[in-house]
Amino acid sequence: MATGTRPRDRLLAAAADLFYRDGVTATGVERLCTAAGVSKRSMYQLFATKDELVKEALVAVGPETHRSFLPDDAESRPRERILHVFRALEEVAGEAQFTGCRFVNTASDLRDPAHPAALVARDFKQQLTDWFATEAGAAGAADPGLLARQLTVVFDGSAARAVMHDTGLDGLSVTTAAALLDAAGVA
Amino acid sequence: MATGTRPRDRLLAAAADLFYRDGVTATGVERLCTAAGVSKRSMYQLFATKDELVKEALVAVGPETHRSFLPDDAESRPRERILHVFRALEEVAGEAQFTGCRFVNTASDLRDPAHPAALVARDFKQQLTDWFATEAGAAGAADPGLLARQLTVVFDGSAARAVMHDTGLDGLSVTTAAALLDAAGVA
Repeated sequence: MATGTRPRDRLLAAAADLFYRDGVTATGVERLCTAAGVSKRSMYQLFATKDELVKEALVAVGPETHRSFLPDDAESRPRERILHVFRALEEVAGEAQFTGCRFVNTASDLRDPAHPAALVARDFKQQLTDWFATEAGAAGAADPGLLARQLTVVFDGSAARAVMHDTGLDGLSVTTAAALLDAAGVA
Repeated sequence: MATGTRPRDRLLAAAADLFYRDGVTATGVERLCTAAGVSKRSMYQLFATKDELVKEALVAVGPETHRSFLPDDAESRPRERILHVFRALEEVAGEAQFTGCRFVNTASDLRDPAHPAALVARDFKQQLTDWFATEAGAAGAADPGLLARQLTVVFDGSAARAVMHDTGLDGLSVTTAAALLDAAGVA
């Protein structure tokens, strides 16, 4: 239980944690409230429904999740900046607590593309694709938009592989991204 | 409700259907039994636990799921045989009822790599990777095992994209697989 913070922040933190670890559907309101140290009554004063909490938790944790894969400004070469994302993925995918991409998991758990949280998840995934497109454009890729979608596919497919096989990626995502960068003429 | 079949088969069919549509966690035993037209008492005589049903349903439906992506023997060119898998994926990924790869979904829903059904899911995913490796070897790929893992990543990442964006793939998985085949020297 997080202490010293407001009930709303504690609920958002517990939700982000439990939804990622156990899944949105598997995590009941009871358990969320216990983890956050907040009564159910207080929770429903802050969030009208569990669905709203699912959405708001993703809005709150999404930016940091997105940023955690990006290189810092010291790296200026677009190809290296792109490959950094896959190296960062390989690192987290090798950790025991990795359960896949938070955004894909949310959409998959909900099984409802119109759910407000699924729309938030889609926006964050699109943010990564847009970032790839900008870097691919700076690198002079023949078709930056296509390369960006391909790199996103490699990102999500690699995350799925790490979940399925419960092992690290052993460089597979970096190698695959590099092959597609080569194919797109990004040296 | 499926009629004219044994309770066990009706339960396996309902489980495969509901677990795929709504998710393993979201589907309770009550609903499964109603859909199968089987009493809970009968269900627990046939399957000791829901977990066992989750596993047995995947064992039952997995082979057909796997086969549904493969080309028939009329197509003998390895590159075309491999690309057929992605064309088949694009077709199902464009359907409204597509919720992703059945095997990845099961592993992701369960969040437990040691769950018997997660192990079954992993075996089926490995079966696809092995199939890619055999075809890649026949096609003279430089490193058939690596190419096979890359193609599996493209398969699963494309499925995730279709779920996230709730749209068809517009050829993205075929284009990406083709780029990796080119890179591996498979003409």
